Amino acid sequence: MTVAATAIIHPHVHLGEAAQVEDYVILGVVPQAGTDQELETHIGRSATIRSHTVIYAGNRIGDGFQTGHHVLIREANRIGDQVSIGSGSRIEHHVTIASRVRLHSNVFVPEYTVLEEGCWLGPGVVLTNCLHPLCPQAKRCLKGPRIGAGAIIGAHATILPSLIIGERALVGAGAVVTRDVEPGMVVVGPQAAPLKRMDELTCQYGLMDHPYPGLKT
Amino acid sequence: MTVAATAIIHPHVHLGEAAQVEDYVILGVVPQAGTDQELETHIGRSATIRSHTVIYAGNRIGDGFQTGHHVLIREANRIGDQVSIGSGSRIEHHVTIASRVRLHSNVFVPEYTVLEEGCWLGPGVVLTNCLHPLCPQAKRCLKGPRIGAGAIIGAHATILPSLIIGERALVGAGAVVTRDVEPGMVVVGPQAAPLKRMDELTCQYGLMDHPYPGLKT
Amino acid sequence: MTVAATAIIHPHVHLGEAAQVEDYVILGVVPQAGTDQELETHIGRSATIRSHTVIYAGNRIGDGFQTGHHVLIREANRIGDQVSIGSGSRIEHHVTIASRVRLHSNVFVPEYTVLEEGCWLGPGVVLTNCLHPLCPQAKRCLKGPRIGAGAIIGAHATILPSLIIGERALVGAGAVVTRDVEPGMVVVGPQAAPLKRMDELTCQYGLMDHPYPGLKT
Repeated sequence: MTVAATAIIHPHVHLGEAAQVEDYVILGVVPQAGTDQELETHIGRSATIRSHTVIYAGNRIGDGFQTGHHVLIREANRIGDQVSIGSGSRIEHHVTIASRVRLHSNVFVPEYTVLEEGCWLGPGVVLTNCLHPLCPQAKRCLKGPRIGAGAIIGAHATILPSLIIGERALVGAGAVVTRDVEPGMVVVGPQAAPLKRMDELTCQYGLMDHPYPGLKT
Repeated sequence: MTVAATAIIHPHVHLGEAAQVEDYVILGVVPQAGTDQELETHIGRSATIRSHTVIYAGNRIGDGFQTGHHVLIREANRIGDQVSIGSGSRIEHHVTIASRVRLHSNVFVPEYTVLEEGCWLGPGVVLTNCLHPLCPQAKRCLKGPRIGAGAIIGAHATILPSLIIGERALVGAGAVVTRDVEPGMVVVGPQAAPLKRMDELTCQYGLMDHPYPGLKT
Repeated sequence: MTVAATAIIHPHVHLGEAAQVEDYVILGVVPQAGTDQELETHIGRSATIRSHTVIYAGNRIGDGFQTGHHVLIREANRIGDQVSIGSGSRIEHHVTIASRVRLHSNVFVPEYTVLEEGCWLGPGVVLTNCLHPLCPQAKRCLKGPRIGAGAIIGAHATILPSLIIGERALVGAGAVVTRDVEPGMVVVGPQAAPLKRMDELTCQYGLMDHPYPGLKT
């Protein structure tokens, strides 16, 4: 294990073997609205936590975890194995992230989001969980999106609350998704209109027949 | 008052009682284009300044101020009471923020913006203040938007320079606002077209008649 | 040269005269997939590296370099003179940035991007370099956009991979650019449709005949 001298590790943090924790990282921050209960933080083997990252207490994170720089992960999340969170991304609390999920840089993930196995979120993606902010009942209906297994959310896309993005769907860069997306569908534009099916995509560089061969049925 | 050992507090910073300043925070940074005058920084009572946040000198901030992590606040802003600035948000200089304003994560607020009482900016919102960047006269016409009292700017929206968003209007997530928005209007999409009035919104979860009851006239 | 006591400068970093390095900066981080070769980092004269910024090893940066706060610059980039990278922006590796380029806050620049002389990227701009993420051949076709000399990319715009934005073109705020943009053209909206030519823009404040006088032919 390699922990930089300037890293601050609060009590009740359990770091697996071969972890690397870089400078100015803070691990195990107790949430302000904390309970009396001591919040344990578990991070699996071979983690790399890059500089200036902040991870709250009460997370349970699998093996092979990686963060970029300046990442924020709030409390009470469940994160699988081989997950990567890009630089500048912010994960709120009570988020479920399955194994092999990758978030690129500057992504925002609100509370009660579910990211399924191996999905990919591009740089600058913003997910949301509240249809009517400032509504006096807003806390009763917070619900993030569910991003299906292997789905790809293009750079800078916006996903409205509680929507379901189907397995292996692709949301185009800059799209604004305002309704559910069917599995294996490519959607683009300001209302995320269906464009084609994933198995109809072709490689414009001629490197292969099809960029997602596993989808071909 | 609780100030972390690694927090750096420059001279002329006045922190009110019961302030909490977390690790790797820097308060009272003197702007490079500084004047001869010593810039005082006032932060009111019960502030919580979370880790890795940077606040410049020359700010006057009210009581109950909160920042998330990795926040930047430049010089010469006027900020009211009970204001919250989310993680990763950047506030430029000469911004006016009234009381009870809340900015979520990763918001960008340029110089000469006005945020009125109790307005709400969602994650990833970008405001602008310059119609023609690189114009040799650009510094003479910089003007940020004015966001009216109680207005809601949905996640990831973009607001063009100098626009006025009326009181208690709602800008949909991902919208690009290219003209003024009337008070109490809901606008959506790539040109922020009017969709309906705020008092026509309904709760899709059946939790209440109307998400913004104070608006019902 | 002024280097803050908390700044961490790794070996093989060469800082020119009159550099200012602020608190909690880290310079010369060796990439994980490092080579046996020692990576030299060169930063020219009169650099200002603001707090919490991270710059990897293997960069070659000109004179007058400025970063905002919380910036990330990965390895193996070539950066000219008088370049400014705004707060919270992230530059990946193998990026070419010519002299006098300015990136505003929270910009994302992927690997293999080319930013030509004096171009300007507004706050929250996201460039991309991969048309089909998760494609097994994706690493073979990564190609960022090329932003022409003097081009202006408006706030919060999204640029798709490998596109060419012509010299002194202007991409409107919030636009999503899905095909090449001709030199001197103004494009706006969710498919970045051509709106007019740069030399047809007028100053709405009456401060001058034309915001981009050098363009008038």
